[in-house]
Amino acid sequence: MTYDRDQAPLSPADRAQLVRRQARAGLLTTSTSGLAPTIQANLLVLPARYAADFYLLCQRNPVPCPLLYATEPGQYTCDLAKGSDIRTDIPGYNVYIDGVLDTPEPKEDIMDEWSEEHVGFLLGCSYSFETALVKAGFTPHHMKQNKAVPMYTTNIPLIPAGVFTRGHYVVSMRWYKPEDVETVREITRHPRFVEQHGEPIAWGWEGAAKIGVLEKMRRHEVDFGDWVAGDDGDVPVFWGCGVTPQQAVLENAIEGVVMSHKPG
Amino acid sequence: MTYDRDQAPLSPADRAQLVRRQARAGLLTTSTSGLAPTIQANLLVLPARYAADFYLLCQRNPVPCPLLYATEPGQYTCDLAKGSDIRTDIPGYNVYIDGVLDTPEPKEDIMDEWSEEHVGFLLGCSYSFETALVKAGFTPHHMKQNKAVPMYTTNIPLIPAGVFTRGHYVVSMRWYKPEDVETVREITRHPRFVEQHGEPIAWGWEGAAKIGVLEKMRRHEVDFGDWVAGDDGDVPVFWGCGVTPQQAVLENAIEGVVMSHKPG
Repeated sequence: MTYDRDQAPLSPADRAQLVRRQARAGLLTTSTSGLAPTIQANLLVLPARYAADFYLLCQRNPVPCPLLYATEPGQYTCDLAKGSDIRTDIPGYNVYIDGVLDTPEPKEDIMDEWSEEHVGFLLGCSYSFETALVKAGFTPHHMKQNKAVPMYTTNIPLIPAGVFTRGHYVVSMRWYKPEDVETVREITRHPRFVEQHGEPIAWGWEGAAKIGVLEKMRRHEVDFGDWVAGDDGDVPVFWGCGVTPQQAVLENAIEGVVMSHKPG
Repeated sequence: MTYDRDQAPLSPADRAQLVRRQARAGLLTTSTSGLAPTIQANLLVLPARYAADFYLLCQRNPVPCPLLYATEPGQYTCDLAKGSDIRTDIPGYNVYIDGVLDTPEPKEDIMDEWSEEHVGFLLGCSYSFETALVKAGFTPHHMKQNKAVPMYTTNIPLIPAGVFTRGHYVVSMRWYKPEDVETVREITRHPRFVEQHGEPIAWGWEGAAKIGVLEKMRRHEVDFGDWVAGDDGDVPVFWGCGVTPQQAVLENAIEGVVMSHKPG
């Protein structure tokens, strides 16, 4: 095996270009049939006083929290996607007050909750790498069954940043045959998915035990999303998940009004 | 508290500038008295076939592995520091063969081991933030006692990347009074230390237990460096440590000739 230029270290300029390309390619899906645009990214909206600490949290935990964009305080547009409005362009919103979920049912917009003191963060999601998996013949079971991906809170600690001293990685789970694990690792390891969680963080039953989700899987339970069964002989494969920031808001009991996309 | 511009998100261009500034400020100390230059960074030299995977490992674990610079295969100079030679400018080298330490005593250079198939990685180290701690009156005990900083391998898993599927965070430990922990967190959280491990990843006796190093500390043992005692009432504070890549080489039994700085 030789030194693969395509996999070579990215310079800061390369990374900037990558972010711009991702923004054009995947962040905003503008329907041509007159429907409202839909943002293909995970969203977290925080009081501005937490913005610097959350930015650091993302820098220190880039796999579950791949930060693509941060607004100015009060700014609800996204320079990366013209015409977007983060208060309305996500299919469903959760609202948290003082670290507690305030919306048993997701909200359609956050026009009433948004204020000049809020900062919006857009984070990469699994949409892009799932498309690549489908193209390669590795369609995840939840997509075939039209369900939400199963998600679990793990025992992997978030590395602290400012007020965010607690928190754990959340992962999404997809079933694959043991002999296909290396291939799906390779597909999602491609540099273009670095800011969409990249390759898995654990795999196999041993991996499930190591990250502390085995018992829940045995009971066919999930922490977020839907339970999805695998085929005989399949093993679970776990990727970093953009629900992690919401879990951090809960575990750190962040004060004030926080908003996010609804998981799944 | 208002939105602090100094702590605001860094753009990719800002980050590039930060790296250049760090390179000028701290990476290379060229003595004016005719001594050889000394590189103020952690070094890992790998066979080129592992370079892409190691780059990804650093991207996915930036706190213990803050990558500043990667050479081309066979390149032993560093563009960031003119006149430097990574084969000779580190005070002591470890050599690993097939994942096993081959040098009980550190080597003064790696001229014999270096080949055209090797790639050098320079990683941020704690030198810069220790200087800031000293300036603020928080001189670490090991510096007062002229010892190496105590280092521990933790139970925090490295997020996998390519062949690096195993591995754990290594941390450095410094003693502080409980009432000073928030201040030393704040000092090392400054954006200029983002690529020198940044703020601590755990603190206090509860933190020591959580990351799995409490028993070793009670026995006054270390995994790397020297044991250093604290004062009455002090608690341990743990930062990400640049020995982590060497630990990953060991835990993954990386084949071939690998070279690094000697810890401590």
